[in-house]
Amino acid sequence: MEFHPIAWADPAAVRILDQTLLPNDERYLTLETLEQVAEAIHSLRVRGAPLIGISAAMGLAALVARLGAAATRAEVERLAALLQATRPTAVNLAWALGRMRARAAAVAEGEVLVAALRGEAQAIWDEDRAMCHRIGEAGLPLLPDGATILTHCNAGALATGGVGTALAPIYLAHAAGRRIQVIADETRPLLQGSRLTAWELSRAGIPTTVIADNMAASRLRRGDVTCVIVGADRIAANGDVANKIGTYPLALAARAHAVPFYVAAPRSTFDFATPDGAAIPIEERHANEVRHPGGATRPTAPAAAAVWNPAFDVTPAALVSGYLTDAGLLDRDTLARLRD
Amino acid sequence: MEFHPIAWADPAAVRILDQTLLPNDERYLTLETLEQVAEAIHSLRVRGAPLIGISAAMGLAALVARLGAAATRAEVERLAALLQATRPTAVNLAWALGRMRARAAAVAEGEVLVAALRGEAQAIWDEDRAMCHRIGEAGLPLLPDGATILTHCNAGALATGGVGTALAPIYLAHAAGRRIQVIADETRPLLQGSRLTAWELSRAGIPTTVIADNMAASRLRRGDVTCVIVGADRIAANGDVANKIGTYPLALAARAHAVPFYVAAPRSTFDFATPDGAAIPIEERHANEVRHPGGATRPTAPAAAAVWNPAFDVTPAALVSGYLTDAGLLDRDTLARLRD
Repeated sequence: MEFHPIAWADPAAVRILDQTLLPNDERYLTLETLEQVAEAIHSLRVRGAPLIGISAAMGLAALVARLGAAATRAEVERLAALLQATRPTAVNLAWALGRMRARAAAVAEGEVLVAALRGEAQAIWDEDRAMCHRIGEAGLPLLPDGATILTHCNAGALATGGVGTALAPIYLAHAAGRRIQVIADETRPLLQGSRLTAWELSRAGIPTTVIADNMAASRLRRGDVTCVIVGADRIAANGDVANKIGTYPLALAARAHAVPFYVAAPRSTFDFATPDGAAIPIEERHANEVRHPGGATRPTAPAAAAVWNPAFDVTPAALVSGYLTDAGLLDRDTLARLRD
Repeated sequence: MEFHPIAWADPAAVRILDQTLLPNDERYLTLETLEQVAEAIHSLRVRGAPLIGISAAMGLAALVARLGAAATRAEVERLAALLQATRPTAVNLAWALGRMRARAAAVAEGEVLVAALRGEAQAIWDEDRAMCHRIGEAGLPLLPDGATILTHCNAGALATGGVGTALAPIYLAHAAGRRIQVIADETRPLLQGSRLTAWELSRAGIPTTVIADNMAASRLRRGDVTCVIVGADRIAANGDVANKIGTYPLALAARAHAVPFYVAAPRSTFDFATPDGAAIPIEERHANEVRHPGGATRPTAPAAAAVWNPAFDVTPAALVSGYLTDAGLLDRDTLARLRD
């Protein structure tokens, strides 16, 4: 990787890549105050579930480090609560901050607390990086020299602390010297595929071609796509996959052309308490995301027309060729292993 | 219809709706000179295969009418050649201008020529309007009270001299007092669905909801879509359909949910000299259409990434439930009737 979406900055600060400026500007921000850390998370300057958790943990550790000998558990609790409020529904944010608070509760105050939180944040980051790598290793055998991979949305280095989930096998294959190329769905309405996936892969020197989502079926028909790899927001007990809107029609097109369709996700994405996709609630977002593509100044749809904007869809397990996890390549019948 | 994409303007001019300003501004232009008529066609102020042909014919008739007693066949030939050059690959443009030239060749010059050309242009328009109406009648029985129709791109009043092709049954059902609603794919990259289809249907008082193309599969799964109706650019002898990119994945999703998928087109769209879809050449257009959605000022994809931008795709005949034509509702086995 030649860029870093997050890093420690000395003394006692965090440096992030401002993702809202991609793909046009690669600009880094140093976060030194609570306001700066909170604003970066709230305004999506850092995004992607794992990276949000890592950013909050590292930000919290840096803020506490500035207190030095004056660092207290009460201050950790106060800062964690304020950071949690920046994106109340982000599961990884609550999880990472909860882990930081638990660590704080187990040690003394002052410099010992500072060191413990820095260590915990680093561990959260390291574990995510290792998890990404294991997902990459699970998918690496699927990408021979000359492979073409089609992907949707962004489940890459910009969303995690490592090489991503869906993009992890791609980075590993590239690092292994295999000549591969990627087709990236632009991913309407928010264009994470063109803005983020195409940026990070190009930045890493991997040949990438952007298409509108509705061109994927024609590309799959052409016969030169080795496989499709996408990420996941939640995977139900039966293997149904909730992911960014547009994943399901892509899976249908892959099946129509007998192209393997893989879902990459860490075991934390598997929700065995949810029996199937029908039980997963689908968030509907604001009409302006559809009306103003790419931030276009004037709306592209008339005010008199309504807009329906579901953020996710559900791909039935029957369309999934396999799951690339940090516990290896699984199929529907072996998914239950993750439950143990 | 409460708006008119084209009309005669007196004396000896043509009035058009400037479609490049939709959906935000409904502005009409009066075309009185060769430069104005040519610019309107070249700059896509009028678009849609049938409407381009009608506009060129009416524009030519108006320009010749300004000459009055001085109108000559040589001038008709000169003007027709210049208009033909505005969009050299538009088949309907060549067809309509050819018909006007043939009419000119058959009559005297001066006022007789003026009247003959005005009559011929009016006939081209009237025949297109009648053709649209017959397609609408072919589809009307498919749309009961309460129907929800999903469509792609714009094959409506803004593309023809009448009520469109794919939208014709919708206008007729609305006029018959049936309560119907339409789901319009925005249709990346050029957004004809949100800019044009949603505008013209809303303008006519038909409830319309815009979605990104990749949301159609989720909508079809929901079970409230009565049928899909799309237009066609060319239909091969075996029934394969070339139409705007995104039609094929929509047909796959309709089939997955057992929703009928209809193609609406006049008999002139059926090309019996082309055996099947594989023989239809697919135009690839400029990367900027993908990079700058909705005219966004800054690109949404990095310069280092390539773009693949096919303008059309091919839907196999096996996915088509029926063809709504000016000769009625046909299926694959009865298509050959159109050949005679």
